[in-house]
Amino acid sequence: MTAEADAVSDEQQIRAVIDSWLSGSRAGDLTALLNLMTEDVVFLTPGNMPMRREQFMNALKSMAGVVDIDGRFDVQEITVTGDTAICWNLLEISITTQAGGATVRRAGNTLTVFRRGADGQWRIWRDANMLAPA
Amino acid sequence: MTAEADAVSDEQQIRAVIDSWLSGSRAGDLTALLNLMTEDVVFLTPGNMPMRREQFMNALKSMAGVVDIDGRFDVQEITVTGDTAICWNLLEISITTQAGGATVRRAGNTLTVFRRGADGQWRIWRDANMLAPA
Repeated sequence: MTAEADAVSDEQQIRAVIDSWLSGSRAGDLTALLNLMTEDVVFLTPGNMPMRREQFMNALKSMAGVVDIDGRFDVQEITVTGDTAICWNLLEISITTQAGGATVRRAGNTLTVFRRGADGQWRIWRDANMLAPA
Repeated sequence: MTAEADAVSDEQQIRAVIDSWLSGSRAGDLTALLNLMTEDVVFLTPGNMPMRREQFMNALKSMAGVVDIDGRFDVQEITVTGDTAICWNLLEISITTQAGGATVRRAGNTLTVFRRGADGQWRIWRDANMLAPA
């Protein structure tokens, strides 16, 4: 393949990871989500401490059966350099309580760095989430 | 130089850019700040539209003579890959009105992607700013 075809393929793979992330979030599929992040992943958000793999798991477990998550995204840009990729994304998430059905919507930009593992799979490595109430 | 020495040197250069960014902000030195960002820079923050070079300039001009900016940072991690570097930083900023002297403090994580230009200089290319009232 040419370098250009590789870049297209990498971009498609990274879009597929984001798709899987969203469907895993909808389904509350912790195993699927854990496979989409590196062992040393860091999630950064405003007003909170950095969240690593274990904190992410605990947060997700506490939401299981309590809320339904849905969302959509609009990739602004994916830049691949070697085994690192930088993705600027526009994300909308809705969180609905299963008891009561109240929905909170959040929208905004994310800046995510993906890394390609030894197995060839792209995974989230650093994530900056700037979603705000929408 | 060894690759390791190169990495240290890159990291030192990037730390120097962050230092210059803060001293340029303190001094309100627009020219200095513009030289520390790429032509196609994008600044991302919660609840706001993405800001490019021109919007950044306008925002900074509107603050000149109105507020004093000070701050400090604590680099958490710099990862260099080729001509791209990813920096996770912990930033504290205080903004004080020149009339009145009221100070607003903001603190939090930033995730910044730097790029090395043809001139060898590292510059801010993508910046995710997750500072919150502190």
